[in-house]
Amino acid sequence: MSENAALEPITAAILVIGDEILSGRTKDRNIGYIAEYLFNIGIDLREVRVVPDEEAEIVAAVNALRARYTYLFTTGGIGPTHDDITADCIAKAFGVAIDVDPRARAMLLERYQESDLNAARLRMARIPAGAELIENPISKAPGFRLGNVIVMAGVPAIMQAMLDNVAPGLETGIRVEVATIEASGLPEGIYAGPLGALAEEFPALSIGSYPSFHQGGFTNQIVVRGRERAQIAAAEAKIRGMLAALVADKAPI
Amino acid sequence: MSENAALEPITAAILVIGDEILSGRTKDRNIGYIAEYLFNIGIDLREVRVVPDEEAEIVAAVNALRARYTYLFTTGGIGPTHDDITADCIAKAFGVAIDVDPRARAMLLERYQESDLNAARLRMARIPAGAELIENPISKAPGFRLGNVIVMAGVPAIMQAMLDNVAPGLETGIRVEVATIEASGLPEGIYAGPLGALAEEFPALSIGSYPSFHQGGFTNQIVVRGRERAQIAAAEAKIRGMLAALVADKAPI
Repeated sequence: MSENAALEPITAAILVIGDEILSGRTKDRNIGYIAEYLFNIGIDLREVRVVPDEEAEIVAAVNALRARYTYLFTTGGIGPTHDDITADCIAKAFGVAIDVDPRARAMLLERYQESDLNAARLRMARIPAGAELIENPISKAPGFRLGNVIVMAGVPAIMQAMLDNVAPGLETGIRVEVATIEASGLPEGIYAGPLGALAEEFPALSIGSYPSFHQGGFTNQIVVRGRERAQIAAAEAKIRGMLAALVADKAPI
Repeated sequence: MSENAALEPITAAILVIGDEILSGRTKDRNIGYIAEYLFNIGIDLREVRVVPDEEAEIVAAVNALRARYTYLFTTGGIGPTHDDITADCIAKAFGVAIDVDPRARAMLLERYQESDLNAARLRMARIPAGAELIENPISKAPGFRLGNVIVMAGVPAIMQAMLDNVAPGLETGIRVEVATIEASGLPEGIYAGPLGALAEEFPALSIGSYPSFHQGGFTNQIVVRGRERAQIAAAEAKIRGMLAALVADKAPI
C-alpha cells in the first residue's frame, strides 16, 4: 500500500443493525463517530453496511464482513426486547452456543434487584460462548467481543463508552496522516486535470477533492492522505504550487 | 408480507461511495434523508453499504445490490476529479460503453462557456450507454438512471434535488403506516416480555422498541409498522392496554 508494505494495514467494517435506521425513523449517529475514532487510532474503515432486524440478513453480513476485515464492529440489537436478536445472530454466525452468561448476569445485578431480573432483562446477559465482555458503564448490559467481532449497543452514548473500553485491546496500524488544502476559491473543474496528474505521481497517497455547497456556492477542499509524512508534504507543496499558478492565471492583468 | 401478499413490496438499497465517509472526515447526511424519503413514498429500504473510491469495490457492490432489490440509489463520485469514478464503475458493472453524452454536455453548457468545458469538466458528462439523465438544477452536471440503478451526487443539496427529479418515475408500494407509542416512563425490561408475546400475535406487523438516552435516563418508544391500518390499530390498543396495566401494577397502593 506504500513503502510500508511490510506493515499490513489494520482494517475494519461497521455493521449497523436496525429497522429504525432503514425506515429513516432514527438517524444514525454511530457510523461517523466510529469512522473518525478508528481513523484516529490507525484502523482503516473499509466498509459499512446497514441491515434490518432479520436473522438471515444479520448472519450473512456478519460472516461476509468478519472474513474480510481485521475487525467488525456492530451496533444495535442488544437490548431486552424481542427485536434485539444480535447476540443470537452472532452465535449463529460463529456456530457457537449462546446462553445467559454468569459474568453478564452479575453486571446486570449492579443495576437491577435480583427480583427485577426477569426473562426479558436476562436476554441482555445472553452471550455467545467464548466471548469477552465489554463493560457498559451507563446501563450495565454489556457488549462483547467474539473473535474479531465487536458487538456494541446502538444508543450512541453507550456505544461510545463501549468503544472506549474495547479500543485499548485492538491491534492498530500506523495512523494515516492528512493534509487538507483549501482550494483558494477555484472550482474543481479548473484544477481537476492537474490534480489527477499529481495523484498519478504519488500512487502511495490518496488524494481527494471534496466540494461543499453553501449559500448558493461551492467551496472545495483537497485532502491528501497517506502514511509517509515526507511524501504528503511533497504532494501538498506541489498541489499548493499548482493552485497558486491557476489563481495567477485567472487574475486580471 | 401480510394480507397484501399479492402486492409485492418495492425494495431498495443505498450505496454511498466515498473515502471521505469511511475516514470520518465527512459525516454522511444522505442515508437518513433517502431512508425517510423512500419510506414516505412506499419503498422499503432494505440495505445500505458504504464503500471506498475503488473500482473493484464499487462494481462488486453495485452488482450485488442491483440484483437483489427493486432499486439501487448511489451517492457520490460523479464530480470532475480523478477520484470521481462512479459513472465508469456503473458502466463496468452493467458491461456497457461509456462516453461523453451529448445531452449531458448540453446541460453543462448551461453553466459553462464552451471554452471552459475542459477535459475534467467533460468527465461530468460521461454517461453509460442507455442511461436516462437526471437533471441537476444546482450545478447542472446530471445524475443518471441505468436500469434499476439511480446515480446521484454526494453533495446533499444536489442529491436531494436529483431525488425529487427521479422519484415520480419510480414504482412505489403501499406506504407503510406507523403508530408510535410512548412507553409511559416504563423501562424496556418491564414490558419486553408482554411486548414480545404481542409481536407474535401480529406476525404481519413489525413491532420495535427504541430506547433513547438523555440526561442520564432512558425514554422508550414502541413503534408498530405495517400496511394494514386496522391491524396496526388493534396492536396499538393492545400495547397501550398492556402498558397501562404495567403502570397500574407499579403504582403505590
